[in-house]
Amino acid sequence: MTVDALAAARRLAPRLAARAAEHDRDGSFPVEDFADLRAAGLFGLMVPPALGGLGASFAGYAGVATELARGNGATALVFNMHASVTGALGALTQELAEALGVPDEALAARDRLLAEAAAGAWYGVAMSERGAGSRLSKLTTTYEAVDGGYHIKGAKTFCSGAGHADAYLVAARSAADGSIVSQFLVPAGRDGLHVEPTWDSLGMRATASHDLHLDVTVPADRLLGGVEGLALVVAQLMPHWLVASYAAVYVGVARAAVDAAVEHLTARGLDGLPAVRARVGRADAATAAAELAVAEAARRVDEAPGDVETNRWVWRAKLLAGTTAAEVAASMVEAAGTSATRRGHPLERLYRDARCGSLHPATSDVCADWLGIAALGGDPDRDGSAPRW
Amino acid sequence: MTVDALAAARRLAPRLAARAAEHDRDGSFPVEDFADLRAAGLFGLMVPPALGGLGASFAGYAGVATELARGNGATALVFNMHASVTGALGALTQELAEALGVPDEALAARDRLLAEAAAGAWYGVAMSERGAGSRLSKLTTTYEAVDGGYHIKGAKTFCSGAGHADAYLVAARSAADGSIVSQFLVPAGRDGLHVEPTWDSLGMRATASHDLHLDVTVPADRLLGGVEGLALVVAQLMPHWLVASYAAVYVGVARAAVDAAVEHLTARGLDGLPAVRARVGRADAATAAAELAVAEAARRVDEAPGDVETNRWVWRAKLLAGTTAAEVAASMVEAAGTSATRRGHPLERLYRDARCGSLHPATSDVCADWLGIAALGGDPDRDGSAPRW
Amino acid sequence: MTVDALAAARRLAPRLAARAAEHDRDGSFPVEDFADLRAAGLFGLMVPPALGGLGASFAGYAGVATELARGNGATALVFNMHASVTGALGALTQELAEALGVPDEALAARDRLLAEAAAGAWYGVAMSERGAGSRLSKLTTTYEAVDGGYHIKGAKTFCSGAGHADAYLVAARSAADGSIVSQFLVPAGRDGLHVEPTWDSLGMRATASHDLHLDVTVPADRLLGGVEGLALVVAQLMPHWLVASYAAVYVGVARAAVDAAVEHLTARGLDGLPAVRARVGRADAATAAAELAVAEAARRVDEAPGDVETNRWVWRAKLLAGTTAAEVAASMVEAAGTSATRRGHPLERLYRDARCGSLHPATSDVCADWLGIAALGGDPDRDGSAPRW
Amino acid sequence: MTVDALAAARRLAPRLAARAAEHDRDGSFPVEDFADLRAAGLFGLMVPPALGGLGASFAGYAGVATELARGNGATALVFNMHASVTGALGALTQELAEALGVPDEALAARDRLLAEAAAGAWYGVAMSERGAGSRLSKLTTTYEAVDGGYHIKGAKTFCSGAGHADAYLVAARSAADGSIVSQFLVPAGRDGLHVEPTWDSLGMRATASHDLHLDVTVPADRLLGGVEGLALVVAQLMPHWLVASYAAVYVGVARAAVDAAVEHLTARGLDGLPAVRARVGRADAATAAAELAVAEAARRVDEAPGDVETNRWVWRAKLLAGTTAAEVAASMVEAAGTSATRRGHPLERLYRDARCGSLHPATSDVCADWLGIAALGGDPDRDGSAPRW
Repeated sequence: MTVDALAAARRLAPRLAARAAEHDRDGSFPVEDFADLRAAGLFGLMVPPALGGLGASFAGYAGVATELARGNGATALVFNMHASVTGALGALTQELAEALGVPDEALAARDRLLAEAAAGAWYGVAMSERGAGSRLSKLTTTYEAVDGGYHIKGAKTFCSGAGHADAYLVAARSAADGSIVSQFLVPAGRDGLHVEPTWDSLGMRATASHDLHLDVTVPADRLLGGVEGLALVVAQLMPHWLVASYAAVYVGVARAAVDAAVEHLTARGLDGLPAVRARVGRADAATAAAELAVAEAARRVDEAPGDVETNRWVWRAKLLAGTTAAEVAASMVEAAGTSATRRGHPLERLYRDARCGSLHPATSDVCADWLGIAALGGDPDRDGSAPRW
Repeated sequence: MTVDALAAARRLAPRLAARAAEHDRDGSFPVEDFADLRAAGLFGLMVPPALGGLGASFAGYAGVATELARGNGATALVFNMHASVTGALGALTQELAEALGVPDEALAARDRLLAEAAAGAWYGVAMSERGAGSRLSKLTTTYEAVDGGYHIKGAKTFCSGAGHADAYLVAARSAADGSIVSQFLVPAGRDGLHVEPTWDSLGMRATASHDLHLDVTVPADRLLGGVEGLALVVAQLMPHWLVASYAAVYVGVARAAVDAAVEHLTARGLDGLPAVRARVGRADAATAAAELAVAEAARRVDEAPGDVETNRWVWRAKLLAGTTAAEVAASMVEAAGTSATRRGHPLERLYRDARCGSLHPATSDVCADWLGIAALGGDPDRDGSAPRW
Repeated sequence: MTVDALAAARRLAPRLAARAAEHDRDGSFPVEDFADLRAAGLFGLMVPPALGGLGASFAGYAGVATELARGNGATALVFNMHASVTGALGALTQELAEALGVPDEALAARDRLLAEAAAGAWYGVAMSERGAGSRLSKLTTTYEAVDGGYHIKGAKTFCSGAGHADAYLVAARSAADGSIVSQFLVPAGRDGLHVEPTWDSLGMRATASHDLHLDVTVPADRLLGGVEGLALVVAQLMPHWLVASYAAVYVGVARAAVDAAVEHLTARGLDGLPAVRARVGRADAATAAAELAVAEAARRVDEAPGDVETNRWVWRAKLLAGTTAAEVAASMVEAAGTSATRRGHPLERLYRDARCGSLHPATSDVCADWLGIAALGGDPDRDGSAPRW
Repeated sequence: MTVDALAAARRLAPRLAARAAEHDRDGSFPVEDFADLRAAGLFGLMVPPALGGLGASFAGYAGVATELARGNGATALVFNMHASVTGALGALTQELAEALGVPDEALAARDRLLAEAAAGAWYGVAMSERGAGSRLSKLTTTYEAVDGGYHIKGAKTFCSGAGHADAYLVAARSAADGSIVSQFLVPAGRDGLHVEPTWDSLGMRATASHDLHLDVTVPADRLLGGVEGLALVVAQLMPHWLVASYAAVYVGVARAAVDAAVEHLTARGLDGLPAVRARVGRADAATAAAELAVAEAARRVDEAPGDVETNRWVWRAKLLAGTTAAEVAASMVEAAGTSATRRGHPLERLYRDARCGSLHPATSDVCADWLGIAALGGDPDRDGSAPRW
């Protein structure tokens, strides 16, 4: 099944690539890319087969993300969010549900959401806030119980796919008890949801990571887990998810840069220059190594999620993918020459897209710090420099 | 006098910086920047005092270029072209003129052009052609003698400031004898000059380096040197000019990136992070070293233009400035974090602008090759890999 | 079985490490290390189980080599030669033997040699010659048929373990027909074998890679394959062997450098310095990535030896391992500070050992060239710069 | 005069180079090098002309140090210590002496010591102690007033030229009042001075930086400044001295590595390989830039010693010289290939010598931190990470 998903991603990548320049130029959302993903059944990638999905492992997902990113990194990043939501929901096992006191009807609600994803529903993430970043402890968005559900009020930022998703994962703080943080899957199309188009970025311009303003009521069954206060638990399941899947995307971006350079250089007969060959050769090796690191991290996330050694591999993968993508894209531009800096040229976009990998949390500098602490026998959670996220 | 020019450049830089984001966004030409440069008398920077100019040395010019580039690299790059033209014209000494058989009236015409520059005329360069690059031997633009002057026909590319300059330095081949290449200073505003807006680039977007189509007649006194076939001589005077002045510009870009990062980081209270300090410290040292290399190259261009050792310093300066600008800007973005990648943030622009330095001729890879050949006792002119320009 | 071999290598590594400083200082051969390897049965690592060996795959071997190199890179390099010889002999399948016209008695002789290895015989390699390097086409050592076998005359260089091995793989040219190159396994201890102690190197000092002078007669059954002229065939089987196993060794050296730095820094309480943590973290990630690349290359060598894609992975592994080892060791010295540069400190040795990885054939620069050619659609065999080996 | 000194250094460099391999191999002190330096009058380099010296500026000294280091970095490092002592003594102006309450007879004693240096006396430095490093606040060597002078008791480490200098600058703490630290110039050849041969290092092996044990009485006029407690004042005069002169030495080492690579590569006909040319070209540019940074730092030390901007240039020079030397030497070894790693080959030694530059105080990582703090508007003295020295 995962093999099919990988094949589908490979098949779609050129279609994504063909549209990438336009969406990059305009900062417009690649609506057709998501129609393609839906049609290929990839919205159900992380959904268990029993609920109609493909039941992919994280390793399977990482492979898909890399292939999509070879087409368009921005599309892969947005898909990343959907996969994170459905993956985290799917990771809520029966045992874990019991341990957390998740009522049966909440599990049933969860199953419905996953089944809807398999049938084509697409979920975004609205977690970060200005000033708070993605730290749950600093959120200012609040909710309160009202007749027929919950009312949520606040503003989110960096909400990829804002205005296009079918629902958004929203974290909010209880108005009644500020120590309780819960998560909701807020359906799109309701009154009280407003997208403010703030996203206008160096790279990954097509993600539509706009601000989302909420003043909205949702039904009770949209409280994830059916119990208030589970947000931190889910949050702890997701970080390796996000970090490792960022890595998968940027390996795809690095590979796309090598591909684009090869096409440019051979078309112009510059492939015989020794300096060009040295650049392409070193870029190829670095990209291949980063790809292996992502695959290894993903394999361990499947086998032993949250383990100390798994986390180290996740940070290694993130560090290597982020730095490699930026360095490879820069070197490929230099190999290709001035004509590759023309707007609309794939390398021009990839050079900008690739720069963003090291900046996503955990940044390259933070990953290096954590890896160093771990290698030196310390505990990154306890000993790390103030994290940037 | 040069001191005054440097002071003027420093005074203007913040004005250029304030307009840079807008011109970068729109790819529009910084018309007001050039009004400022004209008003400050900087169009006469390279014009001998006897003709009303500031009589700057090349070292003086390099300092001015770096300061302007701290404001806006694109403006500095366009100014670079004007300085190259007036600098090369000014370098035609009486002795050299006699050796080349330049008639007195041609010297008088040259003096008029320089005096006009000192009075505010601004000259662009229309040298490169698609396919030929800037290699004179491959030019396809032709000219022929007609009543009252010369008729020139062809197309040029990468003509910085196209549509805005008062005249363009144009190289063309004699229709009568293809082995003869001459240069003309073609006045703007004539019938038969047409700007095709092709420039839309990753970085240095405000240079308006569009295509220029020529089907135009110019008076006889617009043939530079007054004798046909002098283009190669002038060309040999100009390369160190162009290469070294690119270097001066990109040192300014690197310094601007450090400045912008410092402002960003201190405003957000991130200046205490060890990883940030290490990045800023290394960037500061690398930029300072590149600046010294440019100053040394410029000093030698003044003292011994064209000398073997001078050329090596020019290549060193170009190589160091190009690689340093790109690396420094990338590291400063990484130090500053995601918020610095928002369009309109100075670092977002500088990251793109900085990437172009290594790509201008002679590219970093070509400079490294030439420097290696020279260090190994060879002759770069004879032993170099096929040049990219 | 391979699992046992890996466990044995891990068990032996600290013993190798404990002796490494002495052999490095004196340039003496680690005789006791090889006694340990023999006692652990590792001389039979590549020998088929039917002949008494462990029947390791190449991937199994690569793991062993890395672990041994964490103890002492020099010991691992010498063991590398033995493994290459036994591995290449073992790779001569029945089918291949028939295709090459290898007579049955030669296969029987081959089996005897492998069985002897499993029982504790240790084989070195005497391939390179001054001036010729390891290029078979330039060898000057000759052989001629004599009563009872062959007489071989010439001189070899870089013969690791010279004076200590039980036999040497020697390539020589037929005196009768210079186009024929054959290989012999020359037993040690014969008259006419003379070791000239020439090895005195920056790093990997304990390999005893001295010169070997030959003026010696060997029995007929010491002609490998039993047919003259098979050297090129064997040579084509071995390169990925040598190149990939160099890579495995240098990953071990890189890991040893990180280990030594961690021990040094924690013992001195320097593990809290941010710059130290950043260095260790980046070194850890780079080393882990190189290790994955070696494992991937090894896996492919087992599955599809000689395939185009396998060769690319071999070059990637070699390039990454060589550059990573040198960069990691240099950074770990810088993290540890002056006290780690005292002779006898593990980092002092590892810094020198690590520098050699990129220099073994194929050098890092050659690997980058070949990888670039392959990525650009060319054929490295046909289009490569003049190889350095 | 400085011109003569520079010429002398250039003349001596090949003599130093010819002896470098032997002293490196044996870890022996280059006695003949110092005889040459003495004969050339260079012991008086920093001594005012009125006292018989050459009266060199710091910039003059830096040039000499670089040239000597092109011959042998170890010799230049030891000479560095003598120059630091005589330079600091010479920097004690009449005004400063009055401000500090230095009695006339102490100035006279100072003049005698300088005059003796000009006549051929050579001074070493015995400042560091195990555990204390060079931090005066942690010294455990003590002195007390006795009949006819002072008795000093303690142990010093990293005393370059130990056993060969004519006197040693020794810092010690008053046994009577532990808050008072004074400096003495202890004559060699007295009872109670004992050299313990502890120096055995990766690089710079010929400096004889052994331990020095003191249990010795010196005449009263050997108290520098004639007043107890001046050590901190002198110490504050010297750091830029040491840091900047380390930088000068390592630029010479980097240049020597390029020189050696060029000689090796041209002799073997490898100078046409593109990868070789690229390495040599980039090394040449990096070395030239570091050399300019050292010259700029030295110029500012002469013009405005201790200024905030001067200190920044000193750190830039140290950072650039240290990192450049190590990177250049590593790349030159890689360009030259395995044969350059043979012991006795200049590149083999230079690769080890060059690694030490970043490790001398202030280390490269510390310089980067300080430069970053300064660029970000902070004060390195107040805000720096715990210094490593």
